[in-house]
Amino acid sequence: MLEPTAGHRLVVTTDVLVEGLDFTAALSEPEDWGWKAVVANLSDLAAMAAEARWLVLALTVPDPTPVATLERVYAGVGEACRAFGVALVGGDISAGPALSMAVTALGETERPVPRSGARPGDRLAVSGPLGAAAAGLALLQSGDPAAAGLLGRFPGLAAAHRRPQPALAMGLALARAGATAMIDVSDGLAGDALHLAEASGVGIEVHDAAVPLAPGVAEAAALLGRDPLELAIGGGEDFVLAAALPRASDLGGVLDCGRFTADPSTRVRVTRGGPVPLAGLAWDHFRRPG
Amino acid sequence: MLEPTAGHRLVVTTDVLVEGLDFTAALSEPEDWGWKAVVANLSDLAAMAAEARWLVLALTVPDPTPVATLERVYAGVGEACRAFGVALVGGDISAGPALSMAVTALGETERPVPRSGARPGDRLAVSGPLGAAAAGLALLQSGDPAAAGLLGRFPGLAAAHRRPQPALAMGLALARAGATAMIDVSDGLAGDALHLAEASGVGIEVHDAAVPLAPGVAEAAALLGRDPLELAIGGGEDFVLAAALPRASDLGGVLDCGRFTADPSTRVRVTRGGPVPLAGLAWDHFRRPG
Repeated sequence: MLEPTAGHRLVVTTDVLVEGLDFTAALSEPEDWGWKAVVANLSDLAAMAAEARWLVLALTVPDPTPVATLERVYAGVGEACRAFGVALVGGDISAGPALSMAVTALGETERPVPRSGARPGDRLAVSGPLGAAAAGLALLQSGDPAAAGLLGRFPGLAAAHRRPQPALAMGLALARAGATAMIDVSDGLAGDALHLAEASGVGIEVHDAAVPLAPGVAEAAALLGRDPLELAIGGGEDFVLAAALPRASDLGGVLDCGRFTADPSTRVRVTRGGPVPLAGLAWDHFRRPG
Repeated sequence: MLEPTAGHRLVVTTDVLVEGLDFTAALSEPEDWGWKAVVANLSDLAAMAAEARWLVLALTVPDPTPVATLERVYAGVGEACRAFGVALVGGDISAGPALSMAVTALGETERPVPRSGARPGDRLAVSGPLGAAAAGLALLQSGDPAAAGLLGRFPGLAAAHRRPQPALAMGLALARAGATAMIDVSDGLAGDALHLAEASGVGIEVHDAAVPLAPGVAEAAALLGRDPLELAIGGGEDFVLAAALPRASDLGGVLDCGRFTADPSTRVRVTRGGPVPLAGLAWDHFRRPG
Protein backbone atom coordinates (compact mmCIF):
# COMPACT_ATOMS: atom_id res chain seq x y z
CA MET A 1 0.00 0.00 0.00
CA LEU A 2 1.45 3.30 -1.08
CA GLU A 3 0.58 6.70 0.33
CA PRO A 4 0.54 9.34 -2.39
CA THR A 5 1.48 12.85 -1.30
CA ALA A 6 -1.46 15.26 -1.31
CA GLY A 7 -1.27 17.90 -4.04
CA HIS A 8 1.29 15.99 -6.11
CA ARG A 9 0.81 14.36 -9.46
CA LEU A 10 1.73 10.73 -9.87
CA VAL A 11 3.92 9.77 -12.83
CA VAL A 12 4.78 6.28 -14.01
CA THR A 13 7.34 4.86 -16.40
CA THR A 14 8.41 1.41 -17.54
CA ASP A 15 11.54 0.10 -19.21
CA VAL A 16 12.72 -3.42 -19.93
CA LEU A 17 16.36 -4.55 -20.14
CA VAL A 18 17.25 -7.83 -21.86
CA GLU A 19 20.44 -9.88 -21.54
CA GLY A 20 22.49 -9.91 -24.72
CA LEU A 21 20.92 -6.65 -25.88
CA ASP A 22 21.08 -4.22 -22.98
CA PHE A 23 23.73 -5.99 -20.94
CA THR A 24 25.98 -9.04 -21.17
CA ALA A 25 27.98 -11.03 -18.67
CA ALA A 26 31.11 -10.29 -20.72
CA LEU A 27 30.99 -6.57 -20.00
CA SER A 28 29.37 -6.08 -16.60
CA GLU A 29 28.40 -7.84 -13.39
CA PRO A 30 24.90 -8.99 -12.33
CA GLU A 31 24.85 -6.22 -9.70
CA ASP A 32 25.39 -3.71 -12.52
CA TRP A 33 22.41 -5.14 -14.45
CA GLY A 34 20.08 -4.64 -11.52
CA TRP A 35 21.45 -1.16 -10.87
CA LYS A 36 21.01 -0.15 -14.51
CA ALA A 37 17.43 -1.46 -14.72
CA VAL A 38 16.52 0.80 -11.81
CA VAL A 39 18.44 3.82 -13.09
CA ALA A 40 16.99 3.62 -16.61
CA ASN A 41 13.58 4.11 -15.03
CA LEU A 42 14.59 6.72 -12.47
CA SER A 43 16.09 8.71 -15.33
CA ASP A 44 12.67 8.81 -16.98
CA LEU A 45 11.21 10.12 -13.71
CA ALA A 46 13.98 12.73 -13.56
CA ALA A 47 12.94 13.91 -17.03
CA MET A 48 9.42 14.49 -15.72
CA ALA A 49 10.79 16.54 -12.82
CA ALA A 50 9.50 13.90 -10.44
CA GLU A 51 10.79 12.59 -7.16
CA ALA A 52 11.29 8.83 -7.34
CA ARG A 53 9.13 6.96 -4.83
CA TRP A 54 8.39 3.32 -5.66
CA LEU A 55 9.26 0.62 -8.13
CA VAL A 56 8.34 -2.92 -9.08
CA LEU A 57 10.49 -5.48 -10.90
CA ALA A 58 9.27 -8.30 -13.16
CA LEU A 59 12.10 -10.71 -13.87
CA THR A 60 12.23 -13.48 -16.46
CA VAL A 61 14.92 -16.04 -15.88
CA PRO A 62 16.27 -18.73 -18.23
CA ASP A 63 16.87 -22.26 -16.99
CA PRO A 64 19.51 -22.83 -15.71
CA THR A 65 20.43 -19.64 -13.88
CA PRO A 66 22.39 -19.94 -10.64
CA VAL A 67 20.46 -18.58 -7.67
CA ALA A 68 23.61 -16.66 -6.78
CA THR A 69 23.30 -14.71 -10.05
CA LEU A 70 19.74 -13.71 -9.21
CA GLU A 71 20.78 -12.70 -5.71
CA ARG A 72 23.44 -10.47 -7.24
CA VAL A 73 20.92 -8.88 -9.62
CA TYR A 74 18.63 -8.14 -6.66
CA ALA A 75 21.61 -6.79 -4.70
CA GLY A 76 22.23 -4.28 -7.50
CA VAL A 77 18.54 -3.36 -7.54
CA GLY A 78 18.71 -2.81 -3.79
CA GLU A 79 21.86 -0.69 -4.01
CA ALA A 80 20.23 1.61 -6.56
CA CYS A 81 17.01 1.81 -4.54
CA ARG A 82 18.96 2.86 -1.45
CA ALA A 83 21.19 5.26 -3.38
CA PHE A 84 18.23 7.12 -4.86
CA GLY A 85 15.66 6.79 -2.08
CA VAL A 86 13.13 4.61 -3.85
CA ALA A 87 11.26 1.62 -2.37
CA LEU A 88 10.92 -1.72 -4.14
CA VAL A 89 7.26 -2.52 -3.50
CA GLY A 90 6.48 -5.49 -5.70
CA GLY A 91 7.72 -7.99 -8.18
CA ASP A 92 7.19 -11.05 -10.27
CA ILE A 93 9.52 -13.80 -11.40
CA SER A 94 8.88 -16.08 -14.33
CA ALA A 95 10.78 -18.53 -16.52
CA GLY A 96 11.84 -17.16 -19.90
CA PRO A 97 14.36 -17.64 -22.70
CA ALA A 98 16.67 -14.84 -21.50
CA LEU A 99 17.26 -12.89 -18.35
CA SER A 100 15.15 -9.75 -18.61
CA MET A 101 14.21 -7.10 -16.09
CA ALA A 102 11.05 -5.07 -16.59
CA VAL A 103 10.99 -2.23 -14.09
CA THR A 104 8.09 0.14 -13.54
CA ALA A 105 8.86 3.21 -11.47
CA LEU A 106 6.45 5.63 -9.82
CA GLY A 107 7.26 9.17 -8.89
CA GLU A 108 5.53 12.27 -7.63
CA THR A 109 5.81 15.79 -8.89
CA GLU A 110 4.36 19.19 -8.11
CA ARG A 111 5.28 20.66 -11.49
CA PRO A 112 5.53 18.02 -14.21
CA VAL A 113 7.50 18.95 -17.34
CA PRO A 114 6.17 17.41 -20.57
CA ARG A 115 8.07 16.62 -23.77
CA SER A 116 5.75 18.83 -25.74
CA GLY A 117 6.26 22.36 -24.39
CA ALA A 118 9.39 23.57 -26.24
CA ARG A 119 8.92 26.97 -27.91
CA PRO A 120 10.82 28.65 -30.76
CA GLY A 121 13.75 30.49 -29.26
CA ASP A 122 14.18 28.11 -26.32
CA ARG A 123 17.72 26.87 -25.75
CA LEU A 124 18.56 23.18 -25.92
CA ALA A 125 20.41 22.50 -22.67
CA VAL A 126 21.91 19.26 -21.37
CA SER A 127 22.56 18.49 -17.73
CA GLY A 128 26.01 17.02 -18.33
CA PRO A 129 28.60 16.02 -20.90
CA LEU A 130 27.86 13.27 -23.38
CA GLY A 131 29.44 10.20 -24.92
CA ALA A 132 30.84 8.49 -21.82
CA ALA A 133 28.48 5.52 -21.94
CA ALA A 134 28.95 4.89 -25.68
CA ALA A 135 32.73 5.30 -25.39
CA GLY A 136 32.83 3.04 -22.34
CA LEU A 137 30.81 0.33 -24.07
CA ALA A 138 32.93 0.53 -27.23
CA LEU A 139 36.17 0.30 -25.23
CA LEU A 140 34.85 -2.64 -23.17
CA GLN A 141 33.87 -4.41 -26.41
CA SER A 142 37.19 -3.64 -28.09
CA GLY A 143 39.88 -6.30 -28.24
CA ASP A 144 42.56 -3.59 -28.34
CA PRO A 145 44.90 -3.79 -25.33
CA ALA A 146 45.20 0.01 -25.39
CA ALA A 147 41.47 0.17 -24.59
CA ALA A 148 42.16 -1.26 -21.14
CA GLY A 149 44.66 1.51 -20.57
CA LEU A 150 42.13 4.19 -21.49
CA LEU A 151 39.49 2.58 -19.29
CA GLY A 152 41.94 2.77 -16.40
CA ARG A 153 42.81 6.37 -17.14
CA PHE A 154 39.16 7.45 -17.46
CA PRO A 155 37.20 5.32 -14.96
CA GLY A 156 34.08 7.38 -15.72
CA LEU A 157 33.76 5.66 -19.10
CA ALA A 158 33.14 2.11 -17.84
CA ALA A 159 31.17 3.52 -14.91
CA ALA A 160 28.86 5.37 -17.30
CA HIS A 161 28.06 2.04 -18.97
CA ARG A 162 27.86 -0.06 -15.82
CA ARG A 163 26.68 2.32 -13.09
CA PRO A 164 24.83 5.21 -14.70
CA GLN A 165 23.37 7.93 -12.49
CA PRO A 166 19.88 9.39 -12.85
CA ALA A 167 19.77 13.19 -12.90
CA LEU A 168 16.97 13.44 -10.35
CA ALA A 169 18.12 16.64 -8.62
CA MET A 170 18.83 18.30 -11.96
CA GLY A 171 15.34 17.41 -13.19
CA LEU A 172 13.80 19.31 -10.29
CA ALA A 173 16.22 22.23 -10.79
CA LEU A 174 15.43 22.43 -14.52
CA ALA A 175 11.71 22.45 -13.78
CA ARG A 176 12.16 25.26 -11.25
CA ALA A 177 14.27 27.17 -13.80
CA GLY A 178 11.30 27.08 -16.17
CA ALA A 179 12.12 24.18 -18.50
CA THR A 180 9.32 23.97 -21.09
CA ALA A 181 10.12 20.42 -22.26
CA MET A 182 12.42 17.69 -21.00
CA ILE A 183 13.64 14.18 -21.87
CA ASP A 184 16.40 11.90 -20.68
CA VAL A 185 19.14 11.13 -23.14
CA SER A 186 18.84 7.37 -23.25
CA ASP A 187 18.89 6.86 -27.02
CA GLY A 188 21.42 9.53 -27.99
CA LEU A 189 21.06 13.31 -28.10
CA ALA A 190 20.19 13.29 -31.82
CA GLY A 191 17.18 11.09 -31.29
CA ASP A 192 16.07 12.56 -28.00
CA ALA A 193 16.32 16.20 -29.13
CA LEU A 194 14.29 15.15 -32.17
CA HIS A 195 11.67 13.63 -29.86
CA LEU A 196 11.35 16.96 -28.03
CA ALA A 197 11.01 18.90 -31.29
CA GLU A 198 8.45 16.45 -32.69
CA ALA A 199 6.36 16.42 -29.52
CA SER A 200 6.45 20.24 -29.39
CA GLY A 201 5.83 20.85 -33.12
CA VAL A 202 8.91 23.04 -33.48
CA GLY A 203 12.27 22.92 -35.24
CA ILE A 204 15.60 22.09 -33.59
CA GLU A 205 19.25 22.84 -34.29
CA VAL A 206 21.85 20.80 -32.43
CA HIS A 207 25.15 22.66 -32.64
CA ASP A 208 27.96 20.14 -32.99
CA ALA A 209 30.60 22.61 -31.86
CA ALA A 210 28.76 23.17 -28.58
CA VAL A 211 28.10 19.53 -27.68
CA PRO A 212 30.00 18.84 -24.44
CA LEU A 213 32.17 15.72 -24.54
CA ALA A 214 32.69 13.71 -21.36
CA PRO A 215 36.29 13.20 -20.21
CA GLY A 216 37.99 10.46 -22.24
CA VAL A 217 35.51 10.47 -25.13
CA ALA A 218 37.91 12.25 -27.50
CA GLU A 219 40.71 9.85 -26.53
CA ALA A 220 38.44 6.81 -26.94
CA ALA A 221 37.27 8.01 -30.34
CA ALA A 222 40.88 8.50 -31.49
CA LEU A 223 41.83 5.01 -30.34
CA LEU A 224 38.78 3.39 -31.93
CA GLY A 225 38.95 5.36 -35.17
CA ARG A 226 35.51 6.85 -34.55
CA ASP A 227 34.06 10.33 -34.57
CA PRO A 228 33.78 11.62 -30.97
CA LEU A 229 30.59 13.49 -31.86
CA GLU A 230 29.06 10.29 -33.14
CA LEU A 231 29.69 8.77 -29.69
CA ALA A 232 28.27 11.86 -27.99
CA ILE A 233 25.25 12.46 -30.24
CA GLY A 234 24.42 9.23 -32.02
CA GLY A 235 24.15 6.63 -29.34
CA GLY A 236 24.65 5.60 -25.79
CA GLU A 237 22.86 5.80 -22.52
CA ASP A 238 24.33 8.80 -20.80
CA PHE A 239 21.12 9.44 -18.81
CA VAL A 240 21.73 13.17 -18.70
CA LEU A 241 18.68 15.36 -19.24
CA ALA A 242 18.02 17.38 -22.36
CA ALA A 243 15.68 20.31 -21.78
CA ALA A 244 14.19 23.27 -23.57
CA LEU A 245 14.98 26.34 -21.46
CA PRO A 246 13.70 29.86 -22.08
CA ARG A 247 16.50 32.18 -23.15
CA ALA A 248 16.30 34.24 -19.99
CA SER A 249 16.43 31.37 -17.50
CA ASP A 250 19.54 31.09 -15.44
CA LEU A 251 20.66 27.73 -14.12
CA GLY A 252 24.18 26.62 -13.25
CA GLY A 253 25.39 23.24 -14.34
CA VAL A 254 23.61 23.02 -17.67
CA LEU A 255 25.32 23.26 -21.02
CA ASP A 256 23.71 24.85 -24.06
CA CYS A 257 24.16 22.89 -27.27
CA GLY A 258 21.43 24.05 -29.60
CA ARG A 259 18.16 25.89 -29.93
CA PHE A 260 14.54 25.33 -30.83
CA THR A 261 13.24 27.15 -33.90
CA ALA A 262 9.90 28.01 -35.42
CA ASP A 263 10.10 25.87 -38.55
CA PRO A 264 9.20 22.24 -37.78
CA SER A 265 10.61 21.15 -41.14
CA THR A 266 14.12 22.05 -39.96
CA ARG A 267 15.33 19.54 -37.41
CA VAL A 268 19.04 19.35 -37.95
CA ARG A 269 22.47 18.92 -36.56
CA VAL A 270 24.65 21.88 -37.52
CA THR A 271 28.08 20.52 -38.44
CA ARG A 272 31.14 22.22 -39.87
CA GLY A 273 30.03 20.92 -43.27
CA GLY A 274 26.50 22.30 -42.90
CA PRO A 275 23.17 21.07 -41.54
CA VAL A 276 22.41 17.32 -41.41
CA PRO A 277 18.86 16.03 -40.76
CA LEU A 278 18.51 14.55 -37.26
CA ALA A 279 16.10 11.83 -38.41
CA GLY A 280 18.01 8.62 -38.95
CA LEU A 281 20.67 9.34 -36.34
CA ALA A 282 18.69 7.94 -33.39
CA TRP A 283 19.59 4.79 -31.55
CA ASP A 284 17.45 1.92 -32.81
CA HIS A 285 16.45 -0.64 -30.17
CA PHE A 286 16.14 -3.27 -32.86
CA ARG A 287 19.66 -2.75 -34.22
CA ARG A 288 21.49 -2.48 -30.96
CA PRO A 289 24.93 -4.12 -30.76
CA GLY A 290 25.21 -7.05 -28.37
CA MET B 1 0.27 12.48 -15.24
CA LEU B 2 -2.11 10.58 -13.03
CA GLU B 3 -4.50 12.11 -10.50
CA PRO B 4 -4.75 9.91 -7.40
CA THR B 5 -8.08 10.01 -5.57
CA ALA B 6 -7.87 11.77 -2.22
CA GLY B 7 -8.27 9.45 0.75
CA HIS B 8 -7.49 6.30 -1.23
CA ARG B 9 -4.47 4.08 -0.99
CA LEU B 10 -2.52 3.32 -4.10
CA VAL B 11 -1.67 -0.32 -4.84
CA VAL B 12 0.62 -1.64 -7.53
CA THR B 13 1.24 -5.07 -9.02
CA THR B 14 3.35 -6.50 -11.82
CA ASP B 15 3.21 -9.72 -13.80
CA VAL B 16 5.10 -10.89 -16.85
CA LEU B 17 3.79 -13.32 -19.48
CA VAL B 18 6.21 -15.08 -21.85
CA GLU B 19 5.46 -16.78 -25.17
CA GLY B 20 5.89 -20.54 -25.04
CA LEU B 21 5.36 -20.55 -21.27
CA ASP B 22 2.25 -18.51 -20.57
CA PHE B 23 0.77 -18.54 -24.06
CA THR B 24 1.50 -20.05 -27.46
CA ALA B 25 0.32 -19.31 -30.99
CA ALA B 26 -0.92 -22.90 -31.20
CA LEU B 27 -3.57 -22.41 -28.51
CA SER B 28 -4.67 -18.79 -28.60
CA GLU B 29 -4.61 -15.61 -30.69
CA PRO B 30 -2.40 -12.53 -30.20
CA GLU B 31 -5.46 -10.56 -29.04
CA ASP B 32 -5.91 -13.18 -26.29
CA TRP B 33 -2.28 -12.74 -25.16
CA GLY B 34 -2.72 -9.00 -24.71
CA TRP B 35 -6.04 -9.51 -22.93
CA LYS B 36 -4.56 -12.07 -20.56
CA ALA B 37 -1.53 -9.92 -19.68
CA VAL B 38 -3.91 -7.18 -18.57
CA VAL B 39 -6.28 -9.51 -16.71
CA ALA B 40 -3.51 -11.30 -14.79
CA ASN B 41 -2.63 -7.93 -13.29
CA LEU B 42 -6.18 -6.69 -12.74
CA SER B 43 -6.85 -9.93 -10.89
CA ASP B 44 -4.06 -9.03 -8.45
CA LEU B 45 -5.71 -5.64 -7.92
CA ALA B 46 -9.05 -7.38 -7.35
CA ALA B 47 -7.42 -9.44 -4.61
CA MET B 48 -6.40 -6.22 -2.87
CA ALA B 49 -9.97 -4.91 -3.07
CA ALA B 50 -8.77 -2.18 -5.37
CA GLU B 51 -10.37 -0.42 -8.28
CA ALA B 52 -8.21 -0.72 -11.38
CA ARG B 53 -7.03 2.65 -12.67
CA TRP B 54 -3.88 2.63 -14.81
CA LEU B 55 -1.43 0.26 -16.41
CA VAL B 56 1.83 0.26 -18.33
CA LEU B 57 3.11 -2.43 -20.72
CA ALA B 58 6.75 -3.29 -21.43
CA LEU B 59 6.97 -5.54 -24.47
CA THR B 60 9.95 -7.51 -25.71
CA VAL B 61 9.71 -8.68 -29.28
CA PRO B 62 11.80 -11.25 -31.17
CA ASP B 63 13.06 -10.54 -34.67
CA PRO B 64 11.22 -11.20 -36.95
CA THR B 65 7.73 -10.51 -35.62
CA PRO B 66 5.10 -9.24 -38.06
CA VAL B 67 3.87 -5.77 -37.14
CA ALA B 68 0.35 -7.13 -37.58
CA THR B 69 0.97 -9.54 -34.68
CA LEU B 70 2.00 -6.68 -32.41
CA GLU B 71 -1.02 -4.67 -33.49
CA ARG B 72 -3.21 -7.62 -32.53
CA VAL B 73 -1.52 -7.90 -29.12
CA TYR B 74 -2.14 -4.19 -28.51
CA ALA B 75 -5.74 -4.63 -29.70
CA GLY B 76 -6.26 -7.27 -27.02
CA VAL B 77 -4.67 -5.00 -24.42
CA GLY B 78 -7.02 -2.24 -25.51
CA GLU B 79 -10.08 -4.50 -25.37
CA ALA B 80 -9.28 -5.51 -21.80
CA CYS B 81 -8.55 -1.91 -20.77
CA ARG B 82 -11.93 -0.79 -22.11
CA ALA B 83 -13.74 -3.79 -20.65
CA PHE B 84 -12.44 -3.13 -17.15
CA GLY B 85 -12.15 0.66 -17.16
CA VAL B 86 -8.40 0.98 -16.90
CA ALA B 87 -6.17 3.41 -18.83
CA LEU B 88 -2.95 2.39 -20.57
CA VAL B 89 -0.63 5.24 -19.57
CA GLY B 90 2.82 4.14 -20.67
CA GLY B 91 4.92 1.53 -22.29
CA ASP B 92 8.24 0.36 -23.61
CA ILE B 93 9.17 -1.89 -26.48
CA SER B 94 12.49 -3.65 -26.84
CA ALA B 95 14.03 -6.44 -28.85
CA GLY B 96 14.26 -9.79 -27.07
CA PRO B 97 14.51 -13.53 -27.68
CA ALA B 98 10.79 -14.19 -27.12
CA LEU B 99 7.60 -12.19 -27.09
CA SER B 100 7.00 -11.17 -23.50
CA MET B 101 4.59 -8.74 -21.91
CA ALA B 102 5.41 -7.19 -18.54
CA VAL B 103 2.39 -5.33 -17.25
CA THR B 104 2.32 -3.15 -14.16
CA ALA B 105 -1.13 -2.16 -12.95
CA LEU B 106 -2.09 0.56 -10.48
CA GLY B 107 -5.27 0.63 -8.48
CA GLU B 108 -6.86 2.57 -5.67
CA THR B 109 -8.59 1.28 -2.61
CA GLU B 110 -10.27 2.67 0.45
CA ARG B 111 -10.00 -0.56 2.38
CA PRO B 112 -7.10 -2.73 1.25
CA VAL B 113 -7.24 -6.42 2.17
CA PRO B 114 -3.85 -8.03 2.87
CA ARG B 115 -2.83 -11.66 2.50
CA SER B 116 -1.86 -11.79 6.14
CA GLY B 117 -5.06 -11.20 8.10
CA ALA B 118 -6.70 -14.66 8.18
CA ARG B 119 -7.72 -15.80 11.68
CA PRO B 120 -8.41 -19.26 13.08
CA GLY B 121 -12.06 -20.00 12.47
CA ASP B 122 -12.33 -17.93 9.28
CA ARG B 123 -13.92 -19.70 6.34
CA LEU B 124 -11.98 -20.22 3.11
CA ALA B 125 -14.31 -18.87 0.42
CA VAL B 126 -13.79 -18.70 -3.34
CA SER B 127 -15.56 -16.27 -5.65
CA GLY B 128 -16.34 -18.85 -8.30
CA PRO B 129 -15.93 -22.45 -9.42
CA LEU B 130 -12.48 -23.79 -10.24
CA GLY B 131 -10.69 -25.86 -12.84
CA ALA B 132 -12.02 -24.30 -16.06
CA ALA B 133 -8.71 -22.77 -17.11
CA ALA B 134 -6.68 -25.92 -16.44
CA ALA B 135 -9.29 -28.13 -18.13
CA GLY B 136 -9.50 -25.74 -21.10
CA LEU B 137 -5.73 -25.70 -21.52
CA ALA B 138 -5.47 -29.49 -21.25
CA LEU B 139 -8.23 -30.00 -23.83
CA LEU B 140 -6.66 -27.46 -26.21
CA GLN B 141 -3.33 -29.28 -25.88
CA SER B 142 -4.88 -32.71 -26.33
CA GLY B 143 -4.68 -34.44 -29.68
CA ASP B 144 -7.91 -36.31 -28.90
CA PRO B 145 -10.71 -35.48 -31.37
CA ALA B 146 -13.23 -35.86 -28.55
CA ALA B 147 -11.56 -32.87 -26.86
CA ALA B 148 -12.83 -30.57 -29.60
CA GLY B 149 -16.34 -31.83 -28.92
CA LEU B 150 -16.07 -31.06 -25.22
CA LEU B 151 -14.63 -27.60 -25.94
CA GLY B 152 -17.66 -26.94 -28.15
CA ARG B 153 -20.06 -28.21 -25.52
CA PHE B 154 -18.44 -26.18 -22.72
CA PRO B 155 -17.26 -22.92 -24.29
CA GLY B 156 -16.34 -21.59 -20.84
CA LEU B 157 -13.35 -23.92 -20.75
CA ALA B 158 -11.40 -22.43 -23.67
CA ALA B 159 -12.63 -18.97 -22.69
CA ALA B 160 -11.22 -19.43 -19.19
CA HIS B 161 -7.80 -20.08 -20.72
CA ARG B 162 -7.97 -17.43 -23.45
CA ARG B 163 -10.16 -14.67 -22.04
CA PRO B 164 -10.07 -14.86 -18.25
CA GLN B 165 -12.07 -12.33 -16.24
CA PRO B 166 -10.75 -10.46 -13.20
CA ALA B 167 -13.06 -10.57 -10.17
CA LEU B 168 -12.87 -6.82 -9.55
CA ALA B 169 -16.44 -6.36 -8.29
CA MET B 170 -16.20 -9.43 -6.09
CA GLY B 171 -12.97 -8.13 -4.56
CA LEU B 172 -14.75 -5.00 -3.39
CA ALA B 173 -17.74 -7.02 -2.16
CA LEU B 174 -15.52 -9.41 -0.20
CA ALA B 175 -13.73 -6.47 1.41
CA ARG B 176 -17.06 -4.91 2.40
CA ALA B 177 -18.19 -8.29 3.80
CA GLY B 178 -15.20 -8.24 6.13
CA ALA B 179 -12.65 -10.45 4.34
CA THR B 180 -9.57 -10.67 6.55
CA ALA B 181 -7.19 -11.94 3.85
CA MET B 182 -7.46 -12.34 0.10
CA ILE B 183 -5.52 -13.64 -2.93
CA ASP B 184 -6.33 -14.38 -6.54
CA VAL B 185 -6.16 -18.00 -7.60
CA SER B 186 -3.57 -17.74 -10.34
CA ASP B 187 -1.36 -20.65 -9.32
CA GLY B 188 -4.02 -23.12 -8.16
CA LEU B 189 -6.12 -23.13 -5.00
CA ALA B 190 -3.70 -25.44 -3.17
CA GLY B 191 -0.81 -23.04 -3.55
CA ASP B 192 -2.79 -19.86 -3.08
CA ALA B 193 -4.64 -21.03 0.04
CA LEU B 194 -1.24 -22.05 1.39
CA HIS B 195 0.08 -18.54 0.67
CA LEU B 196 -2.78 -17.05 2.73
CA ALA B 197 -2.13 -19.42 5.63
CA GLU B 198 1.62 -18.80 5.56
CA ALA B 199 1.24 -15.01 5.40
CA SER B 200 -1.27 -15.13 8.26
CA GLY B 201 0.61 -17.61 10.45
CA VAL B 202 -2.39 -19.94 10.76
CA GLY B 203 -3.38 -23.42 9.61
CA ILE B 204 -5.65 -24.21 6.67
CA GLU B 205 -7.89 -27.11 5.67
CA VAL B 206 -9.09 -27.25 2.06
CA HIS B 207 -12.09 -29.58 1.92
CA ASP B 208 -11.95 -31.55 -1.33
CA ALA B 209 -15.64 -32.43 -1.17
CA ALA B 210 -16.59 -28.76 -1.04
CA VAL B 211 -14.36 -27.50 -3.88
CA PRO B 212 -16.69 -26.16 -6.59
CA LEU B 213 -15.93 -27.51 -10.08
CA ALA B 214 -16.60 -25.31 -13.11
CA PRO B 215 -18.98 -26.71 -15.76
CA GLY B 216 -17.22 -29.26 -17.97
CA VAL B 217 -14.30 -29.89 -15.62
CA ALA B 218 -15.60 -33.31 -14.56
CA GLU B 219 -16.22 -34.25 -18.21
CA ALA B 220 -12.77 -33.02 -19.27
CA ALA B 221 -11.11 -34.94 -16.46
CA ALA B 222 -12.94 -38.13 -17.49
CA LEU B 223 -11.87 -37.72 -21.11
CA LEU B 224 -8.26 -36.94 -20.22
CA GLY B 225 -7.96 -39.61 -17.55
CA ARG B 226 -7.20 -37.03 -14.90
CA ASP B 227 -8.55 -36.26 -11.44
CA PRO B 228 -11.03 -33.36 -11.65
CA LEU B 229 -9.90 -32.07 -8.27
CA GLU B 230 -6.33 -31.98 -9.48
CA LEU B 231 -7.49 -29.65 -12.28
CA ALA B 232 -9.47 -27.56 -9.79
CA ILE B 233 -6.94 -27.40 -6.96
CA GLY B 234 -3.52 -28.11 -8.38
CA GLY B 235 -3.10 -25.78 -11.30
CA GLY B 236 -4.53 -23.30 -13.67
CA GLU B 237 -5.28 -19.65 -13.83
CA ASP B 238 -8.92 -19.37 -12.90
CA PHE B 239 -8.47 -15.84 -11.54
CA VAL B 240 -11.23 -16.30 -8.98
CA LEU B 241 -10.54 -14.86 -5.54
CA ALA B 242 -9.84 -16.92 -2.45
CA ALA B 243 -10.61 -15.11 0.77
CA ALA B 244 -10.68 -15.64 4.49
CA LEU B 245 -14.16 -14.63 5.68
CA PRO B 246 -15.29 -14.40 9.30
CA ARG B 247 -17.83 -17.12 10.10
CA ALA B 248 -20.64 -14.64 10.58
CA SER B 249 -20.20 -12.69 7.36
CA ASP B 250 -22.90 -13.07 4.79
CA LEU B 251 -22.11 -12.62 1.11
CA GLY B 252 -23.92 -14.14 -1.84
CA GLY B 253 -21.93 -15.64 -4.69
CA VAL B 254 -19.07 -17.05 -2.69
CA LEU B 255 -18.50 -20.75 -2.10
CA ASP B 256 -17.00 -22.13 1.09
CA CYS B 257 -14.37 -24.82 0.57
CA GLY B 258 -12.34 -24.92 3.73
CA ARG B 259 -11.40 -23.17 6.93
CA PHE B 260 -8.46 -21.54 8.66
CA THR B 261 -7.28 -23.16 11.89
CA ALA B 262 -5.09 -22.25 14.83
CA ASP B 263 -2.27 -24.72 14.24
CA PRO B 264 0.14 -23.42 11.59
CA SER B 265 1.73 -26.87 11.31
CA THR B 266 -1.50 -28.21 9.78
CA ARG B 267 -1.92 -26.91 6.25
CA VAL B 268 -3.70 -29.67 4.45
CA ARG B 269 -6.14 -30.77 1.85
CA VAL B 270 -8.80 -33.00 3.40
CA THR B 271 -9.46 -35.83 0.95
CA ARG B 272 -11.62 -38.93 1.25
CA GLY B 273 -8.38 -40.80 2.09
CA GLY B 274 -7.41 -38.34 4.81
CA PRO B 275 -5.36 -35.13 5.03
CA VAL B 276 -2.61 -34.41 2.46
CA PRO B 277 -0.07 -31.61 3.00
CA LEU B 278 -0.72 -28.62 0.70
CA ALA B 279 2.98 -27.89 0.24
CA GLY B 280 4.15 -29.41 -3.02
CA LEU B 281 0.80 -29.10 -4.77
CA ALA B 282 1.33 -25.52 -5.95
CA TRP B 283 1.83 -24.54 -9.55
CA ASP B 284 5.52 -24.04 -10.20
CA HIS B 285 6.38 -21.28 -12.69
CA PHE B 286 9.59 -23.07 -13.56
CA ARG B 287 7.89 -26.35 -14.43
CA ARG B 288 4.97 -25.01 -16.40
CA PRO B 289 3.89 -26.95 -19.48
CA GLY B 290 4.37 -25.16 -22.81
